[in-house]
Amino acid sequence: MATIKDVARLAGVSVATVSRVINHSPKASETSRLAVTRAMTSLQYHPNANARALAQQSTETIGLVVGDVSDPFFGAMVKSVDEIAWQTGNFLLIGNGYHDEQKERQAIEQLIRHRCAALVVHAKKIPDRELQPLMDQIPGMVLLNRVLPGFETRCIALDDRYGGWLATRYLIQQGHKNIAFICSNHAISDASDRLQGYHDALRQHNLPCNDRLVAFGEPDEVGGEQAMTELLGHGKTFSAVACYNDSMAAGALAVLSDNGLRVPEEMSLTGFDDVLVSRYVRPRLTTIRYPLVNMAQQAATLALALAHGQPLPEVTNLFSPTLVRRHSVAAPAG
Amino acid sequence: MATIKDVARLAGVSVATVSRVINHSPKASETSRLAVTRAMTSLQYHPNANARALAQQSTETIGLVVGDVSDPFFGAMVKSVDEIAWQTGNFLLIGNGYHDEQKERQAIEQLIRHRCAALVVHAKKIPDRELQPLMDQIPGMVLLNRVLPGFETRCIALDDRYGGWLATRYLIQQGHKNIAFICSNHAISDASDRLQGYHDALRQHNLPCNDRLVAFGEPDEVGGEQAMTELLGHGKTFSAVACYNDSMAAGALAVLSDNGLRVPEEMSLTGFDDVLVSRYVRPRLTTIRYPLVNMAQQAATLALALAHGQPLPEVTNLFSPTLVRRHSVAAPAG
Repeated sequence: MATIKDVARLAGVSVATVSRVINHSPKASETSRLAVTRAMTSLQYHPNANARALAQQSTETIGLVVGDVSDPFFGAMVKSVDEIAWQTGNFLLIGNGYHDEQKERQAIEQLIRHRCAALVVHAKKIPDRELQPLMDQIPGMVLLNRVLPGFETRCIALDDRYGGWLATRYLIQQGHKNIAFICSNHAISDASDRLQGYHDALRQHNLPCNDRLVAFGEPDEVGGEQAMTELLGHGKTFSAVACYNDSMAAGALAVLSDNGLRVPEEMSLTGFDDVLVSRYVRPRLTTIRYPLVNMAQQAATLALALAHGQPLPEVTNLFSPTLVRRHSVAAPAG
Repeated sequence: MATIKDVARLAGVSVATVSRVINHSPKASETSRLAVTRAMTSLQYHPNANARALAQQSTETIGLVVGDVSDPFFGAMVKSVDEIAWQTGNFLLIGNGYHDEQKERQAIEQLIRHRCAALVVHAKKIPDRELQPLMDQIPGMVLLNRVLPGFETRCIALDDRYGGWLATRYLIQQGHKNIAFICSNHAISDASDRLQGYHDALRQHNLPCNDRLVAFGEPDEVGGEQAMTELLGHGKTFSAVACYNDSMAAGALAVLSDNGLRVPEEMSLTGFDDVLVSRYVRPRLTTIRYPLVNMAQQAATLALALAHGQPLPEVTNLFSPTLVRRHSVAAPAG
């Protein structure tokens, strides 16, 4: 592979001049710019981004930690951050935390080692006390979907409790009085906050909270199937179910269909997230929209500004979800 | 931020010794290893991956170009390559080609600039004549889902034509004689090969090929809806439809359902890919499985071996898809 010395030799200039051209220095003359560009092309020379990052003591990469890139929710997150990276001439380095404390730690550590000055981190398992020193150390580190005490202005999160309340209140407004909740069994704030919002709405409308109407499972389709099966096992004492996310709602829907219970005629159902899944199931899911694209882009913009000591952009630190009405909710029968 | 010199000072050793410890050199004594590790921890020193990559004239990153990481098909691809990266102590750098020739070119170029010695590329739009010199230049570059003449041993692809044949033959075996095909309108081999396989199967069973039974659209749910609408517009002269992929099949299914045509009782339907979508729709899709995980992992393993001049692993260059029977196909009515 050609080196910078080969380029200098062919262009008839010094290595320093080649370096100036590569780094767009105003000190390079138009003549040497032309000669160097021609030499680079003919030698198929690619400037070494590692060397450049080192020389500039900065980096051309934004680091992003997600849960699992093969999950469409995180796929959308990656794409949103990548769009900001693209617009700002940066490149994206991705680490997967796989919902595991140790893997989250390693993913963050790896990105720091790769000198990602701007770092967007979605990690729910690693404890606050470990994140705090990292946030102190890396000025361009921003948390997505998590609020870390003392660093609220560098966190972009969703009001999950409000989302849980919104879905439940909508079901109550349609006339439902016996409403179940299918919840994630992961010990993260998203789950406890959405469940809390469900309880808030019930209490606010003087409806009883019944533990037998709350079932837990993995936050995927199979978890939703199991939770729905568990709820139906106690008898069909409810006419609506609010679900932790769209995948669980899709699983619940399958169990209802297998048991001849029509949605929404005999059972109303809401999801949460509105990422991909809600479009594929029939009837189309009424769901709570997670403004993921906007949140991820704001997190990336904030991380870049912080990393480069630039004026901070206006960002929303706590986003509110919204209700998307489709076809899985109706008034209770009778 | 602490530097390597600070670590050396605190540990009471030379910078060269710190470097040996960081790079796991056998020349570092156990005593200095301990001292350096302690100093690194107390100073929160993170070795600079860029400097290390440069020093070793290699890199710790595998580069991967995909179409669009927010598409679950590519999400699964990223995850598969990431697993190999993780197992081999490498890190993954991702570029999106967004099904656009210019963006594919830029994504590959960026990864080369970042000195990814191992490079797995899924790019369908960039022409052969541009890929050939890149393959010559980067020994660790491997193509996924594409066969480049002259570089067949560095390509991992799927036999799409066989897949199209397999779906169509299965429908014929169930008794169908009038079979439609919903095809992608992208000018890539995946589309023309699957359509060719459909024609092969019809001819082989002496069934007529009718152009009005082939409809094209974007390879997503909306494209599938439009293509199915177009087919039904000519009258219901067919009893089965083979689809280019699962997303198009999901769209076709929605149109059939809206028009009161029951699947599989009144219309049989097959998908292609078996990534995510086929699990969510009802009835569950009978589909052609794309062995994506295996293919992506073999491509990554091959790229790493080529990049490091190691003995080549045994790989399958042309994979065969398989049929997955679920619930969207039945014998024709009557």
